[in-house]
Amino acid sequence: MAQVFPTIKESAGLRLPAWVHSFIQNQTYDFSQTQERMRLAIDLSRENLVQGTGGPFGAAVFELPAYRLVSVGVNVVVPQHTSLAHAEILALLLAQEALLTHDLGKRRLELVTSSQPCLQCYGAIFWSGLSRVVTGARAKDVEALAGSDEGPLPQDWEGEWRKRGISLETDVMRVQACAVLQAYQESGAPIYNPARSTP
Amino acid sequence: MAQVFPTIKESAGLRLPAWVHSFIQNQTYDFSQTQERMRLAIDLSRENLVQGTGGPFGAAVFELPAYRLVSVGVNVVVPQHTSLAHAEILALLLAQEALLTHDLGKRRLELVTSSQPCLQCYGAIFWSGLSRVVTGARAKDVEALAGSDEGPLPQDWEGEWRKRGISLETDVMRVQACAVLQAYQESGAPIYNPARSTP
Repeated sequence: MAQVFPTIKESAGLRLPAWVHSFIQNQTYDFSQTQERMRLAIDLSRENLVQGTGGPFGAAVFELPAYRLVSVGVNVVVPQHTSLAHAEILALLLAQEALLTHDLGKRRLELVTSSQPCLQCYGAIFWSGLSRVVTGARAKDVEALAGSDEGPLPQDWEGEWRKRGISLETDVMRVQACAVLQAYQESGAPIYNPARSTP
Repeated sequence: MAQVFPTIKESAGLRLPAWVHSFIQNQTYDFSQTQERMRLAIDLSRENLVQGTGGPFGAAVFELPAYRLVSVGVNVVVPQHTSLAHAEILALLLAQEALLTHDLGKRRLELVTSSQPCLQCYGAIFWSGLSRVVTGARAKDVEALAGSDEGPLPQDWEGEWRKRGISLETDVMRVQACAVLQAYQESGAPIYNPARSTP
């Protein structure tokens, strides 16, 4: 005789906050410049904080060599109730959805993110096929200003990516990225570390 | 004058393959036993291979102390075209969707997975609030049999979890979990490492 299980969820989705589309349509960027691609990511991180739709993190995926905008992401962890929903994860998921492939390595794609990826996003980038990552604030800035535990990254985290063909540019507009984290800290907003219950 | 961006994707979802619900309704497990919880994860990994709906990996989330089944997941990377869709990620996402919280640490939840989590899933577990992880096959089994690069886990990956209150039980039904990986290898199915294009 078979067991009767409670109904389990069979699907779940992630979505950009409603403001994102019109927000980026109303901005002007020169995406051929690295700083301008980063400015979009930081603008998204700031607006996400202003709108109250998640944590102070923004990201975007561009296709090289033309630097065509493929997708964007912001942190929607609390409103969409999943710890997976970091800005980088949303940008990656939406890039793969736009290009209908799990393997972005068939093209040349760059992820620009307002803060250095945490361990989860660092790991996700290995599988994604991304060719290049550009970061603003450092993990230690996030830990100092947003209070979160970014996880035990390998000591040579950059080298582990490079070994697999993923290039990296760090500290792009770090000061501006940190200013958003600082505003987050000053807003008294929650810290995302999970509660810990010992089984 | 504002720029006109191409339409970007605003949402994306993940879902269990259609066979999962009726499959588990037709099985009988005694979830009070660790091996029986693992048997569900391995059964899902095997059936996912048989049905051709993704890679040979299965996972489930249980709520302690009653070991109530909260969610399940299988790898749907290729059919749902996202590298994020590992079995553990799907199980986590659906558990958080079922409980409507990004923080599973408010309860006592266990993830049972047919293979040791890769670096992406290892990182995701830090943020999830999971209290306990039970694994079948080891990462080195996955690398040997499924050919994938599981990423640079910290040397003391178990200790990094324990420090944060996440307990671990390994090698549960490892032989049975490896048998599914072996069947995957013998099927000549694709290896999931992304293509690497150098920008």
